[in-house]
Amino acid sequence: MGDITFRLFTTKLGGIAQLFAKDLLLDPRASRGVADVRHVIRAVGSSTSTQSSRDFIRDIGGSENEIVPYGSYEDTVADPDVDIVYIATPASHHYANVLLALNASKHVCFTINARQTAHVISVARAKQLFLTEAVWTRFFPLTRSFTRQIHELDTIGKIARVSADFSLLATNDRTGRLWKSELGGGALLDLGIYSIIWVFIALFRHPNNQRQKPEVVGSIVKDPETGVDVLTNILLTFPRLQATAVATTSLLTRTPNDYSVIIQGDKGEISIDRPAPRPTSYNVRLYDPTALPVRHVYDIPSGQGLYWEADACARAIRDGRLETEESPLDESLAVMEVMDTVRAQNGYVFPGPLEDVHLAL
Amino acid sequence: MGDITFRLFTTKLGGIAQLFAKDLLLDPRASRGVADVRHVIRAVGSSTSTQSSRDFIRDIGGSENEIVPYGSYEDTVADPDVDIVYIATPASHHYANVLLALNASKHVCFTINARQTAHVISVARAKQLFLTEAVWTRFFPLTRSFTRQIHELDTIGKIARVSADFSLLATNDRTGRLWKSELGGGALLDLGIYSIIWVFIALFRHPNNQRQKPEVVGSIVKDPETGVDVLTNILLTFPRLQATAVATTSLLTRTPNDYSVIIQGDKGEISIDRPAPRPTSYNVRLYDPTALPVRHVYDIPSGQGLYWEADACARAIRDGRLETEESPLDESLAVMEVMDTVRAQNGYVFPGPLEDVHLAL
Repeated sequence: MGDITFRLFTTKLGGIAQLFAKDLLLDPRASRGVADVRHVIRAVGSSTSTQSSRDFIRDIGGSENEIVPYGSYEDTVADPDVDIVYIATPASHHYANVLLALNASKHVCFTINARQTAHVISVARAKQLFLTEAVWTRFFPLTRSFTRQIHELDTIGKIARVSADFSLLATNDRTGRLWKSELGGGALLDLGIYSIIWVFIALFRHPNNQRQKPEVVGSIVKDPETGVDVLTNILLTFPRLQATAVATTSLLTRTPNDYSVIIQGDKGEISIDRPAPRPTSYNVRLYDPTALPVRHVYDIPSGQGLYWEADACARAIRDGRLETEESPLDESLAVMEVMDTVRAQNGYVFPGPLEDVHLAL
Repeated sequence: MGDITFRLFTTKLGGIAQLFAKDLLLDPRASRGVADVRHVIRAVGSSTSTQSSRDFIRDIGGSENEIVPYGSYEDTVADPDVDIVYIATPASHHYANVLLALNASKHVCFTINARQTAHVISVARAKQLFLTEAVWTRFFPLTRSFTRQIHELDTIGKIARVSADFSLLATNDRTGRLWKSELGGGALLDLGIYSIIWVFIALFRHPNNQRQKPEVVGSIVKDPETGVDVLTNILLTFPRLQATAVATTSLLTRTPNDYSVIIQGDKGEISIDRPAPRPTSYNVRLYDPTALPVRHVYDIPSGQGLYWEADACARAIRDGRLETEESPLDESLAVMEVMDTVRAQNGYVFPGPLEDVHLAL
């Protein structure tokens, strides 16, 4: 039984932080049949006020007898009674927050460019700390089943093509983080990542690819007012596989299909139903006309499904591993390089110091 | 009543030549309600033998009392009793065949690169001859209706994104034209054109685009054995519209959706059902949850629907116009430039003299 205690960081303590915390508080056995790990939220940190952390603890149904509310990130990371930090700030703040946390603990992160990612990976390795990019989708049972279909069972034969889209019609509310470049806004970092990871799961991880990085070209259309990317399309080619992928994301339209991802091989195709970040089913259709289509359903038994990521972190730390099999750090770096490449090809730079690397830290 | 007499060129006198000829022989009024044009096939030309032309005339149900069989292209174009030549040779031969025909007549063409296209356009204009790229899809009543929806009626609002695919699982028979680079083979010229034209119909022709050419990046995967392109993906950006498109084509997989093309705006989306070259229906789905989806059906009343292209040619020639509104020559040139750009970006060159321009002709 590996107990793991979490600290949560976030500016406004809303959205994903709340969903993650609520998932952590669910009973592992009752919610998802897990008996080997247990999570405890030990501390909650806000950058603005202790009251904000108190409100958060109340909102998630927690108790101040068990969870300490903090009013600054510095105070939060100084708490000695914690194993791992979950960072729920906007993308613009990940790099600084990760570095702050690495000086005392282990954590879950998402940074703004590949140089920053490479830097935090090197710091984590030097300090022998656990680190993972917090892309929860990688940890779903559905993802494991899908991976097995295409990489072990050879269900659809030799893979030729992947297309993946995650898009939202976000034009009704232009006040949020997605429309602020100073918070790492735009479609690419917040939505596009969920297109790209499916390409990587299908092709980068393919046994025959031997983890070769893809060739990348992309196009970006920026919003004339805010400068954030509103339409980003990426072509990825994997020469060893003779396979290509199209990863797309947008703030101006929704995902057009019932499915978000389709993988085509020479025997058939697998489509993963919407939405790309949190699918609960996929479909296998073989070209053989006598084969009926099969739908594989992986309902998320309770909560949001964020706990599987937490479970993987807990097990890795318990077993002394510094990264997870589901989300290896070389893959996080390669994904970030894809996003950097497309941004560089299209002159899309985040403002001010967001792209900097601080080697002193 | 404008009578038009056709000559047909082709090496093997099969496939599309036969379908086109059969469509020409249908009664215009009975087959499609057309009363103002009439087509006569006056001559059929083969590069191999007069017998081949005779067989063709028999196969299409024609009569040698009305249709003259020729055993060479030179003899065919020398026939004075013909208005227009339909070229049904492989892409590799279009340029030479078009130039041969332009010395005596008007014609329908498809060439291998933009320089050749620009050349045949300049020759046709200098000789005051009619010329059109024979992409039949442009001439469908469905295409006119679809164009009206997005460019005049503003049904789906401001257009943000187009995706179009035309792909075939062509790996079962690797002996055909598609697998021969010396015939201009590969996915791009034969299949990809039908992805690209829908992008052009939706975006290049958009009134607000003012016929600005798109920015283009693409990726190509080549077949290791034959060198032809088997997976080609193209990103097109239209800066004036703040809109993007993804056009894809493949010989290794089929088109994954029930529809081949989807156009997304800020009010909704239109999907054109498969296949991209010959669709018979499209669907309008608005984001407004009270609006029901509408399916627009344009059955092809008889034959293949190739006659609409022939009708447009006949009317243009009758009225003294040198190109059609449905398929303007600047658009054919811009489409060819897209294909040239993607090939150049990926080092995909057709062999031998196929890419040459012969300014003496």
